[in-house]
Amino acid sequence: MPSLGILIAQGGGPTAVINQSLAGVVFEAHHRCAIERVYGARHGVRGILNEDLLDLSSETAANLEAVARTPGSALGSTRDKPDLPYCQEILKVLKAHQIGHFYYIGGNDSADTVRIVSEQARASGYPLRCIHIPKTIDNDLVGNDHTPGFPSAARFVVQAFIGANLDNASLPGVYVAVVMGRHAGFLTAASALARRFPGDGPHLIYLPERTFEPERFVADVKAVHDRLGRCVVAVSEGVHDAAAVPIISKLAPAAERDPHGNVQLSGTGALADLLCAQIRERLGVKRVRGETFGYLQRSFAGCVSEVDQREAFEVGERAVRFALAADRDGSVAIKRVGHYAVDYELAPLEAVAARTRVMEDALIDESGTDVTDAFRAYLQPLLGSGLPEAHRLRATAVPRQLKTR
Amino acid sequence: MPSLGILIAQGGGPTAVINQSLAGVVFEAHHRCAIERVYGARHGVRGILNEDLLDLSSETAANLEAVARTPGSALGSTRDKPDLPYCQEILKVLKAHQIGHFYYIGGNDSADTVRIVSEQARASGYPLRCIHIPKTIDNDLVGNDHTPGFPSAARFVVQAFIGANLDNASLPGVYVAVVMGRHAGFLTAASALARRFPGDGPHLIYLPERTFEPERFVADVKAVHDRLGRCVVAVSEGVHDAAAVPIISKLAPAAERDPHGNVQLSGTGALADLLCAQIRERLGVKRVRGETFGYLQRSFAGCVSEVDQREAFEVGERAVRFALAADRDGSVAIKRVGHYAVDYELAPLEAVAARTRVMEDALIDESGTDVTDAFRAYLQPLLGSGLPEAHRLRATAVPRQLKTR
Repeated sequence: MPSLGILIAQGGGPTAVINQSLAGVVFEAHHRCAIERVYGARHGVRGILNEDLLDLSSETAANLEAVARTPGSALGSTRDKPDLPYCQEILKVLKAHQIGHFYYIGGNDSADTVRIVSEQARASGYPLRCIHIPKTIDNDLVGNDHTPGFPSAARFVVQAFIGANLDNASLPGVYVAVVMGRHAGFLTAASALARRFPGDGPHLIYLPERTFEPERFVADVKAVHDRLGRCVVAVSEGVHDAAAVPIISKLAPAAERDPHGNVQLSGTGALADLLCAQIRERLGVKRVRGETFGYLQRSFAGCVSEVDQREAFEVGERAVRFALAADRDGSVAIKRVGHYAVDYELAPLEAVAARTRVMEDALIDESGTDVTDAFRAYLQPLLGSGLPEAHRLRATAVPRQLKTR
Repeated sequence: MPSLGILIAQGGGPTAVINQSLAGVVFEAHHRCAIERVYGARHGVRGILNEDLLDLSSETAANLEAVARTPGSALGSTRDKPDLPYCQEILKVLKAHQIGHFYYIGGNDSADTVRIVSEQARASGYPLRCIHIPKTIDNDLVGNDHTPGFPSAARFVVQAFIGANLDNASLPGVYVAVVMGRHAGFLTAASALARRFPGDGPHLIYLPERTFEPERFVADVKAVHDRLGRCVVAVSEGVHDAAAVPIISKLAPAAERDPHGNVQLSGTGALADLLCAQIRERLGVKRVRGETFGYLQRSFAGCVSEVDQREAFEVGERAVRFALAADRDGSVAIKRVGHYAVDYELAPLEAVAARTRVMEDALIDESGTDVTDAFRAYLQPLLGSGLPEAHRLRATAVPRQLKTR
C-alpha cells in the first residue's frame, strides 16, 4: 500500500480560531505513524481544483503554534460551493496525490461539499475518509452545542457593547449596531452579556428568528428613549419581514446581491444607516448613530476566548482520531457536558450538511427583543476568562446652591 | 478663608482612558490637605450650568481605580461649546460652590472653554485656578507629543488592521476601512503599524493632510490589486478635496450636518460604502467590502495601551500639582523625553485652545499614501505591550501530479 497522505482545507468566512483546528489536525497527524504526508490546499476547494497544495509536514511546531494563534485562514479560503462535477474534479486530484483522508474546516456549506466528495469516493470505489471539521461564527450548525469561532466572535460583540453602552451613556442618544448573522441570531444575542448595571444597554435586541416590523422598531426605541433618555440597539444583519424579505432590501431596493442571489449584508453600513434614518425622521431624536461591526467580529486580532481556542484545536485533533478509528465519514460535533465541559462526537454528514440551526425559542425572551436567562447561562462559559468589567461612580449629589435653577 | 473645593468635568468624545485622568485628579486631591471638597460635574459644562454636581470625595479608592479602567466618560460628557454668556453662567455656579480649582478634561474646544472661564474669573476678581487636562483620540492638540486616548485608539486600529489584512488575504478582494479623524490623520496612519510581512496591508493610507483625488484613489487601488490580487485601504473620515470639501459631501450631497455646520462623519457607513461603489463600478472588482470602525475605536472595552493608561492618570495627577504650585492657569502638555519617556509641562491655555495639530510632513511618505519610518518610531512605544502578532505558514509547495492543469 502506498504511504497515507492527508489533505486539509479551510472554507467560508475565517474566524479568530480556525487556524487552531488546522494546527490540531497537523499536530495529531505528526503523532500518527500511519500518516506520512500532510498537505494543505490553498483557498479551500478552489486550491484542490487548481492543485495548489502545500506540504505542511515541513512546518515547525513553533510556527504552527504561532499560526494557530493568528486569526484568518492561514491556508486561504474560498466562497465556492462545489456541485457534483466540481466534487468529481476534487476527487481526481485527491486520487492523483494518493490522499487517504480529506479534512474540510468550515460551515454547513463546507459540510455539504464533504458529503458529496464522500459519496463520489464511495461510488468510485476509492478508499477515502472524509471528515468535516466545524467552524462558523454564526453558530448555526445543527447537532453542535456551539461551533468553534462563535465564542471568540461573541466575545468581540460583548466587549464592543460594553464600550458602546458606556459611550452612549456619556453622550446620550440612540445608537444602533448591526451584528453579523443572516439566519441565526446567536451573535447578535451575545450583546446581552455586555449588561452589568440596571439601565445598561443593549436595551433592544433584534434577531432574525423573529419578524422585524419597522413600525414596532420605531415604537420600541421611542419607549426606551422616553424612559432613559438614550437607547442602545443590537440588530442582526439578517432581520427580515414576515415574508422573509431582508429589511435592507425593503428599505433599500437597490441593495447588492451575490452570485447566489443573496442580498449582500456584510461589508456595507447600509442597514445601520437606514435604521438610523427611520429613527431620526420619525422620532426627531438629535443624536442618532449607527455602526456595523462587520469583519472585525471574526478577524480582530487579540480578542479571543481561550475556551474557543482550546476547543477549535481539539476538533482538529479529534478529526484525525475519528478518521483513523471510525469506519465511516462524518462531521465532528461539540456536545456540552455539565457546567461546563465538552466532548466530541462524529455526526453523520447528512445531519449537518446544508442545514441551518437557529436560536431555540427557550433562548429568546417573550418580548422578542431580548434573551432569556437560559441564553445567558448557555453563553457565559464560552466567552473565556478576563472579560473587561464596567464600573460606575457611586458618588452622591451635591446640594444645589442656586435655588432658581 | 472658606474650604478649598475643586470641580472636575469631562468634555467631548470619551476615550478608553479618560477616567484615568479623572482618577488622577481625585486621588491627588485626596492626598492634599489643602483640598477639602472634590466635585464632579455631570455631562461636562452642561452639568455645571445645570448645577448637576457629584461629591467625588465619597468615592472609595477601589471603585475609583475600577472606574479608571472603564472606558467612556464616567461623569458623562457634552458636545456643548460654551460662548461668553455660557461661561459667565459657569462662573456663577463655581462661585456659589466656592470652587477654587476648575479642571476640564477634553480636547481643543474644552481648552477654549477653560480659557474663557479663566479670563472671566480674572476679570471679575474671583480667585480661580483653571487647568485644562488633555484628551483626544485624534491626537490633534498642539504642543503635545501626543494626547491621552490616542495611544489606546491607535492600538485598536492596529489590532483591527492586523485582522482585516488576514481576513482579506483569506478571501481576496478590496477592503476599505474608514478611520476617525476629521483634520488630523494620526489614527488612520496608525494602521501602518499592523504590517509585518512583505505584502501585508494596509496597502494604501489616505490622510486628511493630503488632498484626496477620487481618480487617483481608483488608480492606486487598481495598481495594488493588479500586483497582489487584493488591496486593503485605510481612509480617514476627514479626507477632502483641494478646496477642503469633505469627500463624503461631494459623493453624497445630502450628508447630514451638525449644529455647527460640520458634515457628520462618524456614526454612519456612508463614506466607506461610497468609496466601495467607486471601486466596484470603475474597476469591476467582484469582492469589495467597506467598513467604518466608528465608536469602537474610542470605546471598545479591553483594548487599551498601558502606556496610555499611565500617562492619562499622570496628566490628572500633575494638573492638581500645577494648580497648587503654579501662579497661572494653563493646559497640561505631554513632552517626550528620550526613547521612551515623558514629562509634563503647563502650557499657556492660548497655545492649545481652539488650535489643531495635524501630522507633520516628516511623518508622511512622499507618495502621500503611506507613513515614514519616523512615524513608526513615533507611534511604536505608545501602543503598549502584548500586541498580537500575525504569523504565516512557511510550508513548501507540493509538486503537481496532473500536468494538464
